[in-house]
Amino acid sequence: MTKPLLITDARLPDGTRVNVSIVDGRIEAIGPDVQAGQDATREHADGALLLPGFVEGHTHLDKTMWGMRWYRNEVGPKLTDRIENERRFRAESGHDAAAASLALSRAFLQMGTTRLRTHVDIDTSAGLKHLEGVQTTRDALRDVLDMQIVAFPQSGMLTRAGTVTLLDDALRAGADVLGALDPALIDGDPVASLNATFDLASRHQKPIDIHLHEPAEIGAFTMKLLLDRVEALGMQGRVVISHAFCLGALAARERDVLLERLAVLDVALCTTGPASVPVPPFAACIDKGVTLFGGNDGIRDTWNPFGSPDMLERAMFIAMRYDLRRDDAIAGAFDLVSGAAARGCGFADYGLFAGARADLVLVEAESVAHAVAVRPARKLVVSKGRVVARDGFFVLVLG
Amino acid sequence: MTKPLLITDARLPDGTRVNVSIVDGRIEAIGPDVQAGQDATREHADGALLLPGFVEGHTHLDKTMWGMRWYRNEVGPKLTDRIENERRFRAESGHDAAAASLALSRAFLQMGTTRLRTHVDIDTSAGLKHLEGVQTTRDALRDVLDMQIVAFPQSGMLTRAGTVTLLDDALRAGADVLGALDPALIDGDPVASLNATFDLASRHQKPIDIHLHEPAEIGAFTMKLLLDRVEALGMQGRVVISHAFCLGALAARERDVLLERLAVLDVALCTTGPASVPVPPFAACIDKGVTLFGGNDGIRDTWNPFGSPDMLERAMFIAMRYDLRRDDAIAGAFDLVSGAAARGCGFADYGLFAGARADLVLVEAESVAHAVAVRPARKLVVSKGRVVARDGFFVLVLG
Repeated sequence: MTKPLLITDARLPDGTRVNVSIVDGRIEAIGPDVQAGQDATREHADGALLLPGFVEGHTHLDKTMWGMRWYRNEVGPKLTDRIENERRFRAESGHDAAAASLALSRAFLQMGTTRLRTHVDIDTSAGLKHLEGVQTTRDALRDVLDMQIVAFPQSGMLTRAGTVTLLDDALRAGADVLGALDPALIDGDPVASLNATFDLASRHQKPIDIHLHEPAEIGAFTMKLLLDRVEALGMQGRVVISHAFCLGALAARERDVLLERLAVLDVALCTTGPASVPVPPFAACIDKGVTLFGGNDGIRDTWNPFGSPDMLERAMFIAMRYDLRRDDAIAGAFDLVSGAAARGCGFADYGLFAGARADLVLVEAESVAHAVAVRPARKLVVSKGRVVARDGFFVLVLG
Repeated sequence: MTKPLLITDARLPDGTRVNVSIVDGRIEAIGPDVQAGQDATREHADGALLLPGFVEGHTHLDKTMWGMRWYRNEVGPKLTDRIENERRFRAESGHDAAAASLALSRAFLQMGTTRLRTHVDIDTSAGLKHLEGVQTTRDALRDVLDMQIVAFPQSGMLTRAGTVTLLDDALRAGADVLGALDPALIDGDPVASLNATFDLASRHQKPIDIHLHEPAEIGAFTMKLLLDRVEALGMQGRVVISHAFCLGALAARERDVLLERLAVLDVALCTTGPASVPVPPFAACIDKGVTLFGGNDGIRDTWNPFGSPDMLERAMFIAMRYDLRRDDAIAGAFDLVSGAAARGCGFADYGLFAGARADLVLVEAESVAHAVAVRPARKLVVSKGRVVARDGFFVLVLG
């Protein structure tokens, strides 16, 4: 039970001035003349822009070094270099996934993200240690942050014996989603890898979120095998393909066959809007009815020093990647880290309407595009009806 | 004449702790035991990282709306849509190039940029108005900001009769460099357009900086015509090709022929590291000895809402575009907005050595890569020996 809250004189993206009445963590009413009882706390928006809480669709909380000493990156260029380097670093440094994920999650809240999906490494060196660490953070922030945990075989599912059993343990221990990684180029056996993944997900009745970096034709080949299994096993609406670089490299005809199948099977795509590799096509996904949403991937970790817990920054990177410059187009990029991400990940009761969860952000900006371009400090962040940040500072006292 | 200045306990990128003695706007000495006379002002770096002042290699100060009301972008997608829209906007809004360029230049200084090259529109609607506005800013900031002005035919050189005469006037009126734009795809006559450009530059003995957006094969064709003229007219070391998207789209063999010629003729390239189009190859330029440097292009204008006067941000975009993740590679991206940009634009006496101009930035960062990833507020900015910004704020009183 949270105290009733009334936000006065907020501005919707369409310009309407509204009040928002919040009771028991939900929007009770939103509109120009909405009032609240005498017991409600009042927050004056003074005409600031009202946005729904942001959604991080793909990150790796367990890997981050956010807020820690700078990590000097001297890693080789290959995917396997980065995997090996990280495993070595963790063994040597005693990197603490609980502390790391808590620091980054607080920063996410401070910048307006109230729901997130994190992949968590499950491997034969660390076992379930990272999962347990991130679960500690999830428990600590349960009242203000919705976190989905993906059990992710970062070192491959089949390459190290025992990984499938660990993933099975992870799903039993509370992971919400089963992860997977490049069935052909990492596991070397796309059919066996996908069969193991779908078998495990089916047994636990859990959704799947697969990292598919495989390029062009090999990626298309793997994607087809994957879609066959979604169809055969009735997994419609329960599978996300992250990255999906291949869709940015195929000829339009071959690509569109895949997009149409993704739409029919309700398989969503997640992109970081990476500047250096091909990306799923923005306009064609919308045209074909494919849900495309956004995420950071790792943030300041042994893989990559860039990215931040500011989803407005991620929306900017996505807008730049797709060359979106018009205000309406940039608002479309923002949708990838808000509405579309909630849809893609299956976060319920999301948005600015009566009955939705009261996850709100106020920023001093004239429009959504302005907010994305300027990324001002958040004037107010409300999550599940609680004020968690004000004027750029985290203000919640954790119980 | 500026007062002598001693910066104590600064840290070079290699870790060495140094003092820097500055006299008459130049570095007099730099090293661990350097001292200064009693009359010197002292600035304590407290171990902060010392970098040379940043260099913006390609921007459009006259177009910006930095610090003004948000501009709602509803512009069509084509290059000509953007050119027409801007001309209309300026005619209707009375956009003031002097005020706009001053606001953005101050922000550049505040964030550590002490030298910049700006293109300024010369066209038959505005005549030399934008040039005069930017010259007013250049004069106002002459003591602290080195500004090169490029007379730029944004609407094409041959498409509107009278433009060549205006460019001639602009060079006579104080523009330092002659600009140009897509000789084939805008002017429709690459030979005539390039001939007019080189003729004008030769008559005024001015360098050239051409916007070449033309893609792939047509860009390569134009570039070859351009290099022929550099060679024939002895313009080695005096030409920059900005954008040069074509070099990112050609097969390696065809591309390398052009790179080798660029190196021999000492023609430099400038890139923004755009996420949505092909870019000149980073490693191949270095291998072949081609100077590649960086710039923002327009910042928050009718073309594009993104970019900022923070060259550390631009270095980050460039690093992301080229997938540079290692610390040494990110330091290479920083070189594009510092040493390489000074070389490419011909800014003299640049760097951290005795005799160089005293353009210095202090930031709280462990390394160059750390500074690029975090982009902290500038602890101190010194330009020509004067303190212009401190702790993120512009502190210079303009005379």
